[in-house]
Amino acid sequence: MADSRFFNLLGPLRLKELAEITGAEIAGNLDLDRSFDDVQALDDAGETHVSFLDNKKYAGAFAESKAGACIIRPEYVDRAPPGMSLLVTSEPYLGYAKVAQRLYPTSKPSAGISPQAMVDPRALVGVGTRIDPGAVILSGAEIGANCIIGSNSVVGSGVTISDDCRIGANVTLSHCCLGHRVILHPGVRIGQDGFGFALTAAGHEKVPQLGRVIVEDDVEIGANSTIDRGAGPDTVIGAGTKIDNLVQIAHNVKLGRGCIVVSQVGISGSTEIGDFVMIGGQAGLTGHLEVGSGSRIAAQSGVMRNVEAGATIGGSPAKPMRDWLKEVAFVERMVKNKSK
Amino acid sequence: MADSRFFNLLGPLRLKELAEITGAEIAGNLDLDRSFDDVQALDDAGETHVSFLDNKKYAGAFAESKAGACIIRPEYVDRAPPGMSLLVTSEPYLGYAKVAQRLYPTSKPSAGISPQAMVDPRALVGVGTRIDPGAVILSGAEIGANCIIGSNSVVGSGVTISDDCRIGANVTLSHCCLGHRVILHPGVRIGQDGFGFALTAAGHEKVPQLGRVIVEDDVEIGANSTIDRGAGPDTVIGAGTKIDNLVQIAHNVKLGRGCIVVSQVGISGSTEIGDFVMIGGQAGLTGHLEVGSGSRIAAQSGVMRNVEAGATIGGSPAKPMRDWLKEVAFVERMVKNKSK
Amino acid sequence: MADSRFFNLLGPLRLKELAEITGAEIAGNLDLDRSFDDVQALDDAGETHVSFLDNKKYAGAFAESKAGACIIRPEYVDRAPPGMSLLVTSEPYLGYAKVAQRLYPTSKPSAGISPQAMVDPRALVGVGTRIDPGAVILSGAEIGANCIIGSNSVVGSGVTISDDCRIGANVTLSHCCLGHRVILHPGVRIGQDGFGFALTAAGHEKVPQLGRVIVEDDVEIGANSTIDRGAGPDTVIGAGTKIDNLVQIAHNVKLGRGCIVVSQVGISGSTEIGDFVMIGGQAGLTGHLEVGSGSRIAAQSGVMRNVEAGATIGGSPAKPMRDWLKEVAFVERMVKNKSK
Repeated sequence: MADSRFFNLLGPLRLKELAEITGAEIAGNLDLDRSFDDVQALDDAGETHVSFLDNKKYAGAFAESKAGACIIRPEYVDRAPPGMSLLVTSEPYLGYAKVAQRLYPTSKPSAGISPQAMVDPRALVGVGTRIDPGAVILSGAEIGANCIIGSNSVVGSGVTISDDCRIGANVTLSHCCLGHRVILHPGVRIGQDGFGFALTAAGHEKVPQLGRVIVEDDVEIGANSTIDRGAGPDTVIGAGTKIDNLVQIAHNVKLGRGCIVVSQVGISGSTEIGDFVMIGGQAGLTGHLEVGSGSRIAAQSGVMRNVEAGATIGGSPAKPMRDWLKEVAFVERMVKNKSK
Repeated sequence: MADSRFFNLLGPLRLKELAEITGAEIAGNLDLDRSFDDVQALDDAGETHVSFLDNKKYAGAFAESKAGACIIRPEYVDRAPPGMSLLVTSEPYLGYAKVAQRLYPTSKPSAGISPQAMVDPRALVGVGTRIDPGAVILSGAEIGANCIIGSNSVVGSGVTISDDCRIGANVTLSHCCLGHRVILHPGVRIGQDGFGFALTAAGHEKVPQLGRVIVEDDVEIGANSTIDRGAGPDTVIGAGTKIDNLVQIAHNVKLGRGCIVVSQVGISGSTEIGDFVMIGGQAGLTGHLEVGSGSRIAAQSGVMRNVEAGATIGGSPAKPMRDWLKEVAFVERMVKNKSK
Repeated sequence: MADSRFFNLLGPLRLKELAEITGAEIAGNLDLDRSFDDVQALDDAGETHVSFLDNKKYAGAFAESKAGACIIRPEYVDRAPPGMSLLVTSEPYLGYAKVAQRLYPTSKPSAGISPQAMVDPRALVGVGTRIDPGAVILSGAEIGANCIIGSNSVVGSGVTISDDCRIGANVTLSHCCLGHRVILHPGVRIGQDGFGFALTAAGHEKVPQLGRVIVEDDVEIGANSTIDRGAGPDTVIGAGTKIDNLVQIAHNVKLGRGCIVVSQVGISGSTEIGDFVMIGGQAGLTGHLEVGSGSRIAAQSGVMRNVEAGATIGGSPAKPMRDWLKEVAFVERMVKNKSK
């Protein structure tokens, strides 16, 4: 069970409720009233726990698990231990997410502005929003309903935040507009000047950065990530895009909808990225590129050219994944042959 | 036009004023009293806007632009659309920077220490300096004139900040001395302990870090970048150097004047870098190196050896750019030939 | 001498005391009562200074140093300048650390909760602990004795911190338990949600992150590093492990005891790392790996497979160091031969 100092466990769910929540079909032990009180990993689960199998690496742990119920793909039904209730679906991880959300619901924030928050009288704060001690809301900021603004965060002048957003502690926002249900983890920086200088032999002249950052609905951004505002056009993070920790997004970048950007990625200025693009950890993209929708960029890639929609690329400089893997194998083989 | 919630547009400029500000020569439509009220990108610019062409990638957009005036290099004069006023210079981006600075001037801070700032009575604060709500200035800190200290930033004991500095929100400073006109973006950390341990099989003994960080005049440092103080000698960031977001500078590093350090670069301990060095994004430099003035290090390079002045290097391990590109092409060609 | 605004120099030590502190044998000038008042680098040291030679790169500086005493390995005794007192040990850097610690002792914090700190009445604060202005301690947090909580840091609900910890400024803690003598530098983020989503074509469903972060005794974590809490199991940082700046540790990672993790490393979810592993700067590890104790991972490595105990690996994709170096040399040679 999750540590009760940090998490509130709601109460037991019956097998029939689990089937409803997950949209799965039931197999194995079919007792619809069987009761489950928690989620748990395959290894540690017991009689009253719900577990899941998504990564085939853990198929062995599944076969030996003592979990009372498990969310699995159809092909694993035959390998289940006896007595286990099975929730069969093509998307077991999604099913697990929904069960866990139900057992550990996100509590609605207790509304109220802490007397130790510092809210400028010319700022607007919506109904049901909680502002924690030490948070600073500057003049002209507008915060929607049912938001949380974490302790010691700073919401700059003129910033707008829509409803149901959760801004972590120690976040800094300026020159930006946030959509609905945006989640920002601690230490995120949004809206500071882009890195724009006219370079001369005598010194570097600062170029005013006159755009904003637009963060659309349902975006989540990880701890200590940085998103610079546009130089003239806006920097845009599309709806439903999820960004991990310590990611850098430079000025004028457009990220499409539903992208996944893993930790420590860097995207240089004015690069435009389509929808549902996946970018692995520590990959770097140079500026002024176009990256097509549905493409996948491997971890640590160094992307210097446009990427076609649906392509999978890797390496530095990045190329089609197959070509890169062939090159890696070629060099390896050449050296091994020589050593014989 | 830039969002008026965030930016103040001053007022129109005549063509003759633009020529003065940029030092450019006028061509095309020569109406010296023609009036311009904003800057705008080539695509979106209209009759009363000033635009610029610097990256030849956008030459097509220039030829079709409806901008009233455009700052360009001499070789593009012949390709200008009819009726456009041309500001001809060898440095169009610099010209644009100056026009944009004039149209959107940095306002002098309204002086004053917020009653919600926490300023130790043994700290000194100069005339005209603004200290925002939630900022903490500890004992013995000295802040010059006309500075801004952002909300929830912390200026540690004994830290000195010279005149006209702009410290963003949620910044932490300790054990450091800042020159004039230094700009620090949100979340910058300067002056914490360097990563110094005497490694033993029994455990790692902490080595006291007894130096400081010296940040010279006109340095700008991006969001969430970290600069550790020296172990004994100081860590030094030379005048006019510009550092992007999420950059790591280790203890004892010396960065020269006018360097450009792009996002997510890491520079290891005691490495010394000359003047006007450019380091591309995500490059890493090992410790105790010497990097000559005017050298250029490509993005994602892994630099393990000294770099000669004026050299251009790339790859990991890094080597002269030409050699690296040849190696990349060689492996590519070998694999392609084999596939035939 | 270190800047007295930032450091307190205790007082002189005699040669015989230096020998005791370092456990070294004395050679060269044997005057046991000779007095030393500071540590200093070889280049800058004078008659009353203690220096050390650890990196053979600086053997020349040692031979010409004017330091009154120097901590060295036995093989350098013969190269010492005349008149120098020698402290001979197999671990000179460790000896230096101990002398520097003695000359510049960490002062015990002056206890007390700043009236400008915001401490929830349902939080517990131990004897001798100092809480700086602007720090926020939320409900149910428990802080041990003799800790420092830096300005504008946030200690979340239910977080526990053991004795003698030093939490820097602008740190955020949630969902975590800290051991004794933990040092966190400014801007560290511990305990936020891991990056867990069930990806679907329609959008990405957030997976509740129900674990914690356990930080064991004597861990040190650098500025702006981020450690996500577990998805179900905990994320664990083993005793005595030292983590540099801007490092990313994902959910469920287990780091063993005494590891060294250099700046900008990224460790993906559920990877388990043994004891005394060293990971060079900017290396990346994919998820669900096992990395054996005592292994060494070179800077910028891209680790995609399990690593055996004691192995040394490099490259991206990473392989045994010898193989990687051979491959690098092979490609270099092939291209050079062709150019002839």
